[in-house]
Amino acid sequence: MAQVVTDILSVNNPLFRVYAFYCSILVLKMMFMSVLTSYKRMTTKAFENPEDLAFLNGKLRTDESVERVRRAHLNDLEGIPIFFVVSLIYILTNPSYFFATTLFRVFTITRTIHTIVYAVVVIPQPARGISWFFGFAITGYMALHNVSYFLR
Amino acid sequence: MAQVVTDILSVNNPLFRVYAFYCSILVLKMMFMSVLTSYKRMTTKAFENPEDLAFLNGKLRTDESVERVRRAHLNDLEGIPIFFVVSLIYILTNPSYFFATTLFRVFTITRTIHTIVYAVVVIPQPARGISWFFGFAITGYMALHNVSYFLR
Amino acid sequence: MAQVVTDILSVNNPLFRVYAFYCSILVLKMMFMSVLTSYKRMTTKAFENPEDLAFLNGKLRTDESVERVRRAHLNDLEGIPIFFVVSLIYILTNPSYFFATTLFRVFTITRTIHTIVYAVVVIPQPARGISWFFGFAITGYMALHNVSYFLR
Repeated sequence: MAQVVTDILSVNNPLFRVYAFYCSILVLKMMFMSVLTSYKRMTTKAFENPEDLAFLNGKLRTDESVERVRRAHLNDLEGIPIFFVVSLIYILTNPSYFFATTLFRVFTITRTIHTIVYAVVVIPQPARGISWFFGFAITGYMALHNVSYFLR
Repeated sequence: MAQVVTDILSVNNPLFRVYAFYCSILVLKMMFMSVLTSYKRMTTKAFENPEDLAFLNGKLRTDESVERVRRAHLNDLEGIPIFFVVSLIYILTNPSYFFATTLFRVFTITRTIHTIVYAVVVIPQPARGISWFFGFAITGYMALHNVSYFLR
Repeated sequence: MAQVVTDILSVNNPLFRVYAFYCSILVLKMMFMSVLTSYKRMTTKAFENPEDLAFLNGKLRTDESVERVRRAHLNDLEGIPIFFVVSLIYILTNPSYFFATTLFRVFTITRTIHTIVYAVVVIPQPARGISWFFGFAITGYMALHNVSYFLR
């Protein structure tokens, strides 16, 4: 039994490696939102804090293009940390390698598409809605799977 | 020693199973906030993004009932991911099964009550304050316990 | 092999102990933001919810000193949970104890400085920018390290 468990939470477990890889990609994607917010603030000169105004003749104002990036970032905060937790627990339920890898990959790809169509190149709906729904459905599936697995 | 540690982070450890179960329930509860926000936006026709307006004759405006759900969701983001981390570390300090299970259960129940009295059926204070305080106190207790345990 | 992995995710692994310690400190630091928000709301009597107004003759209004604390808190939500995930995965890549400990310590110290100069005693830029950048750079370094490690 020790061996089995050790194999699960280990850099030698191929599924854990996949998890660690996609989580790190998703973190980089989230960090990109901070960079994009700063960039938008600098190009629109729209700042929130008086102490930032010395910068580039900034003004204390909101700009729609900045707010859009912040909404995309908040949506990440709502959807991605819960994925980190739920998918780590999901690995421990010993799912199929192929299926779990597909879930992690589709989550990462569709969340990246969500960011692009929301905050980089705005694309008419339902592009954002559909890309959001994939992440939501995958997280929900794993959470329900976990609840049923650990209820026993 | 290997056996002991293996037992801690394992689907065979009853306490880890309890942790995995309540975390997954909490994730589902958080996901419900996204559904509730969408529902409130659709019924009040209050949207944030121009590309969403084609939907149901929506308007670009804020609505207090939508904002209330979003505040409850943000409060979840402030309180629940830190619980996920602190309680996982707490398990590793080898606490009493009964006591830790009680903490996880009370946290989950009071955070659910918090959501209900904040965003579903608004109930006068101190209902929200008290339900919030339970979660805060439990997270704070475990964090302080962890600090003192790992300081040694 | 079992022994090696067991040593990584274990209270007997000195690096894991350092991780658990700093994560718990960071959670307490984040919890302080909630306390500070409540305190600022009570002293400025600026509340968001009608049901909170009975308190201290509160009013439904925003106050800049409250909003500043909330911005600092949101910045924590953007930067600290991703650190929890990325640094846990980083430990599994078997880094140098000294180097990893330094990263965790510098992250915790600079995020604490960020909170102080943003929300407690406002200090002119670039104090906030620099303290923010340390945390961003450390998280980014570990995320890139993880991606390259688990890509193999």
